Amino acid sequence: MTYKPFNQTPDALTTLLAVARGDAEADLVLSGGKLVNVLSGEIYECEIAISGGRFAGISRQAGTYQGRETIDLGGEYVAPGLIDGHVHIESSLCVPAEFANAVLPHGTTSVVSDPHEIANVHGIRGIRYMLSASEGLPLRVFVMLSSCVPATDMETSGARLSASDLAPLLDEPRVLGVAELMNYPGVIGGAPDMIEKALMAHEARVRADGHAPLVGGLGLQAYAAAGVTSDHESVGAEEAWEKLRAGLHILIREGSTAKNLDALISIVNEHTAHRCSFATDDKQPDDLAREGHIDHALRKAIAHGVDPVLALSMATINTARHYGLNDLGAVAPGYHADFFTFSDLHEVRPNRVYAGGKPVAENGRLLGRTRSNVPHPPNSMRVATISADGFAVRAAGQSVRAIGVVPEQIVTEHLQVAAELRDGKAVADTARDLLKIAVVERHSGTGNIGLGFVQGVGLREGALASTVAHDSHNIVLVGATDEDLAAAARSVVEMGGGLCAVRGGEVLARLPLPVAGLMSTAPWEEVRDGMEALLGAARALGSPLLNPYMALAFLALPVIPALKITDRGLVDVTQFKIVPLFLED
Amino acid sequence: MTYKPFNQTPDALTTLLAVARGDAEADLVLSGGKLVNVLSGEIYECEIAISGGRFAGISRQAGTYQGRETIDLGGEYVAPGLIDGHVHIESSLCVPAEFANAVLPHGTTSVVSDPHEIANVHGIRGIRYMLSASEGLPLRVFVMLSSCVPATDMETSGARLSASDLAPLLDEPRVLGVAELMNYPGVIGGAPDMIEKALMAHEARVRADGHAPLVGGLGLQAYAAAGVTSDHESVGAEEAWEKLRAGLHILIREGSTAKNLDALISIVNEHTAHRCSFATDDKQPDDLAREGHIDHALRKAIAHGVDPVLALSMATINTARHYGLNDLGAVAPGYHADFFTFSDLHEVRPNRVYAGGKPVAENGRLLGRTRSNVPHPPNSMRVATISADGFAVRAAGQSVRAIGVVPEQIVTEHLQVAAELRDGKAVADTARDLLKIAVVERHSGTGNIGLGFVQGVGLREGALASTVAHDSHNIVLVGATDEDLAAAARSVVEMGGGLCAVRGGEVLARLPLPVAGLMSTAPWEEVRDGMEALLGAARALGSPLLNPYMALAFLALPVIPALKITDRGLVDVTQFKIVPLFLED
Repeated sequence: MTYKPFNQTPDALTTLLAVARGDAEADLVLSGGKLVNVLSGEIYECEIAISGGRFAGISRQAGTYQGRETIDLGGEYVAPGLIDGHVHIESSLCVPAEFANAVLPHGTTSVVSDPHEIANVHGIRGIRYMLSASEGLPLRVFVMLSSCVPATDMETSGARLSASDLAPLLDEPRVLGVAELMNYPGVIGGAPDMIEKALMAHEARVRADGHAPLVGGLGLQAYAAAGVTSDHESVGAEEAWEKLRAGLHILIREGSTAKNLDALISIVNEHTAHRCSFATDDKQPDDLAREGHIDHALRKAIAHGVDPVLALSMATINTARHYGLNDLGAVAPGYHADFFTFSDLHEVRPNRVYAGGKPVAENGRLLGRTRSNVPHPPNSMRVATISADGFAVRAAGQSVRAIGVVPEQIVTEHLQVAAELRDGKAVADTARDLLKIAVVERHSGTGNIGLGFVQGVGLREGALASTVAHDSHNIVLVGATDEDLAAAARSVVEMGGGLCAVRGGEVLARLPLPVAGLMSTAPWEEVRDGMEALLGAARALGSPLLNPYMALAFLALPVIPALKITDRGLVDVTQFKIVPLFLED
Repeated sequence: MTYKPFNQTPDALTTLLAVARGDAEADLVLSGGKLVNVLSGEIYECEIAISGGRFAGISRQAGTYQGRETIDLGGEYVAPGLIDGHVHIESSLCVPAEFANAVLPHGTTSVVSDPHEIANVHGIRGIRYMLSASEGLPLRVFVMLSSCVPATDMETSGARLSASDLAPLLDEPRVLGVAELMNYPGVIGGAPDMIEKALMAHEARVRADGHAPLVGGLGLQAYAAAGVTSDHESVGAEEAWEKLRAGLHILIREGSTAKNLDALISIVNEHTAHRCSFATDDKQPDDLAREGHIDHALRKAIAHGVDPVLALSMATINTARHYGLNDLGAVAPGYHADFFTFSDLHEVRPNRVYAGGKPVAENGRLLGRTRSNVPHPPNSMRVATISADGFAVRAAGQSVRAIGVVPEQIVTEHLQVAAELRDGKAVADTARDLLKIAVVERHSGTGNIGLGFVQGVGLREGALASTVAHDSHNIVLVGATDEDLAAAARSVVEMGGGLCAVRGGEVLARLPLPVAGLMSTAPWEEVRDGMEALLGAARALGSPLLNPYMALAFLALPVIPALKITDRGLVDVTQFKIVPLFLED
C-alpha cells in the first residue's frame, strides 16, 4: 500500500476502468451511504465501487455496480480519510507503525510528516529509518525533508544536514518537499544555507513548508518571497490573515501543547477555506487516546460553526491539493480508497475506517494490528559522566533570567527574578516555584550542560527528565535539587533515552524510548499508560501542568520565543543569541 | 523571462529578500493601487515592491518601500496577470510571438497550451518548434504534451506520437503534463496506448488533461478513474456538475466557436469556484481583437453575477494551482510580477499590463513588439495531383448522410437527406443549402479524398478551403462545384498551406499559413485583416455563418459528435467508425 501517485500497472488500471464501466465485478461495493463530496461541496446518496485499493466509480443509481463483497452503510455518511498536514510522528513517542495504530481508528489515513526529531539525533539515517519504518503501513506516511538540523547554531545536535545531504532523498516516492524552514531569521536575513535549501525545493518543483511564529510585516514578506508556501505557527487570527494574504497555506494546529484552532477558526470563509488545513504538529499518545487526532480539530471547527463539508474539505482535499497528492483526499474515481463512515454531521465520530480499500478500524477499534519489525538505529546516548556537582550554578549576581512557562503554549516569557543564593550558589526555590532547568548534551559526550531557572512547572520536590527536547533532543531536566537532577539524568541514560520522574534519588516512573531517545517500539497503549504513570508522578511532585513533559520538551527549542535553554546556555530567541544567566546588577 | 518555477540564482533570491525587508531598493514600487488579493479574497490599498521580475513585498503602509522607479496607480485596481487554462495557439493562426502580441494587451500573461495542431503535422519537431518559438516571450507559454496524434485511426495525419516519443519532453521546464486525452472512448475502454499515456503522466506526477464531450454516467467514472484531472468540453451545467463531482477541474471555455460560459457559469459557487477556471481552447485573431481573450470570459462571468474577486481567482490562481505553477497567479511575495491594472471591478478592462515586472501594454496597446525569428519547419504540403474529377461523387443510392452545422458549436448533427443526382453523380444543391464537403490528404501525398455533403454553411456559389482542419489538418473544402473545390485546393497548396475563398476559379481572398499550414509569421493584425477579407469573401459567396472557416476546421474533427469527415470518409462519432455516404434504400 506504499504511496506513489497512481502507482499502477497497466493491468491494474485496465481492471479499474472495467469496474468503473460496470464491465467487471468490483472488490467491494458500498451501498446505502451518503457521500460527502468535498470536490463539489454536496452530500448525496450513492453507491461506491472499489477495485484494487482505489475508487473505481460512484453512481447515484442503486444497483449499478456488482461486487464480490457488498456493504450496506445503512444511511451513514462517507467521507475521504483524514489527512494531518504537518506532524512530527516522534512526538507520539511511538514508532510509525504504532502511531498508525493510534490514529487510524480516528479516521486519519494519511499524514505529512517531518522527521525533524530523529534527524536531529541520527541525521539522514534517522530520516531513512522513518521512511522504511512507515513503508507498507495502512497509514500513508509522507515525508518532508527536515531543513533545519540543527535548528540553530546555539545548541549541539546529533547531526548537521546540508542541502546536498538532503537532495538525494527528494527522489524517494513518499518525499514531498522540504520541511518547515524554522530558522526563520535565517530565511528572512538570506542566510546562505537557508537560501540553498529554499532553492533546492524550487528547483525540484516541490513545496517548502514554513514555520514563522509571530512573524509579520516586512519580515513576513521576505519569508514568503523565499518561496515558503505554508505555515502552522499562527497563534492569532490577524497573524494568520497576514500570512494568507502573503500566499501561505494555513495549517490550523491542534496538538498536545499548541492549540490554535479557537483563535484561528475565524479566518475560514468561502474565499479562504481551501487555503486552510488541519495539523497536529506534536501530539502525545494520551492526548490521541483522549481527544482524537484530526477528527478532534474537525469536530471543534464544526462546533465553531464552520460548514461541515467545508471543514471536511480542510481535513482532506485541501491538504492533499496543497502537497500535490492528486489521488488523495476525495472519494472520486481513481483516488485511493481511503475513507471513513460516520452518522452525525455535527459530531463527526469515525465508525468504519478503510485504507486502500481494506477495513482498518471500526467504531474506534483497530481491526488487526500492524507491528513494526524494522530494525532501528542503535543506542543514541553518548553522555559524559554525570554528577550532582555538574548541575551547580555559581552565583554571579543578584538576579537571574528565568524562563516563564505559559500553560498550553510553546512560547515562553523572558522573566527576570531575584536569585536564591546559598553557599555561593544559585539554587532552586520551590516557595517561589523557581526550579532549576538543565540541558545535558547527549549526542557526542561533550559534557556540555546548559543551566538556568524556570517558573511555572510547579514541582515542590524531585526532578523530571526527558530525552525528548526539541529540537536537538539533548537531555532536558527540571528539578528542585541537584541530586535529583543527576539521578534523573542517570535514569534516562540507562534506558538508552526516555522519560522519568524521580524523588530523593528514587525513580517514581519511567518510560524507555530506545529509538533515538524519542520513540518506543511498544504498543502505543503501553506508551500511553507509561505516560500516564509519568504524569501521575509529576502531579505527585506538585506540577499543576497538564503535561509537564511536553512543556519541558519545548523549553529547549530555541526557535520559539521568548527565552529558551540549550546545552550551551540560555537563548534569547527574540535576539536569537545566547545570553548570560545572571543579569548585570 | 523563461519560466522555471522560482528559476533563481542564490544572488537573485538574496536581493529579493533584501528588497522585501526594506533593506534594498526595489526596481519598481507601485503605490496608490487597490490590490485584488485572490489568496485572501480581499481588496485593499497597498504598496507593491518589485525586484528582479518578482514581487518582493506588499505593504499596507504607504512609504514602506523605496524604488528606483515609482508609479502612482491613482486608485486603480491591481490584479494578477490572467491565465488561459487551455489553448491551442495555432488556432490564432499566428506563431507564438504574434499570439503573445495579441493577448498581452488583454491582460493575459500566461497560457497553458497544447500544440496538438502542429504536432499532427510535424510531430515532435512541431512541439519542439512551439517550445523554442515561445522561449523568452513576455507571455509565459506552458506546454502540455499532445497525447492523441493522430486523434483517431480514421484519418491520415502527418505524425503519430507514442508515449515513448513524448516522454523525453517531460523534462522541458515549461512542459506541465499530458494534454487532453481526446480519444475518450479509447481511455474509457482501456485502449493500451491511452493507458500508457495516462500512466506516463501519473509516473511523472504531472497532470493529464481531459476532453470528454457529453461524457457522463459510468463512462465518465472510467474516464476519471484513468487519472484525468480536467475537462474543457462541457456544454451544459449538469454535464459540468457531474464532472466536478468526479474530480475534474472545470475549464469554462469561451472560444471562437465553442462558447460555453453562459451555459456553465451557474456551477460556480463558494464550494466549486476554486475548481473552475477559464480557457479559450481555440480563438481566431479577429475574435481576439473584437472580444478580447480571458478578460472577455472574466467580464461575462461578472456580468452573470459572479463575485469579481472569485471570477478573478478563476482567471488566475485557480488555474496556476491546478497546474502546479506555484509562483504564478497571485500578487504575493516571491511570485512572478505579472499583473494588470483596471478601474472598474464590474467591467474589467486591462489598462497597464506588466509581465515579469516589465510594462508590456497600456490601455489596450502593446508597448514594444516581440518579433519571432525562430526558423520554422519547411513546407508541410505534400499533395497528389488535384483535379475537379477527384471531387466527383458517384451516385450509389437515393439518400445520403449530411453533416448538419450547428451555428457557434463544434458538435454537428447527423442528417439524412435526399441526394441531388445528376449524370450518375451526387452533386451540391445550393437551393437546399446542400454543399459538397471534401477532405484532401496533404501530409504524404496518398491521394486520399474523403467526400460528403454538408448543410448550414450557406454558400450559394464558389468554394472555401483551409489547411486548418482539426485534428489532422488535411485540406478541408466546401463548395458548390467540383471545379471551385479543385481551384481552392490548388490555391492552398500553392501557398504552402492557408485559407482561401474562390468563385468561378478566381481566388477572392487568401491567407498564407506557411508554418505547418496552420500559422502565419506576419504581425497578428495582418492575419486578422487577412481573415476579415476571407470572411467578407465567404459572406459574398452567401454564407450566413459568423466564421465559416472556423466551422469548417471542426467539421473534420472526428472526436466531437455527431457526424464528421476525414480523408478516409464520413465518421459517425457516436459509433466511432467510418460510415458510408449513401444510405441503404
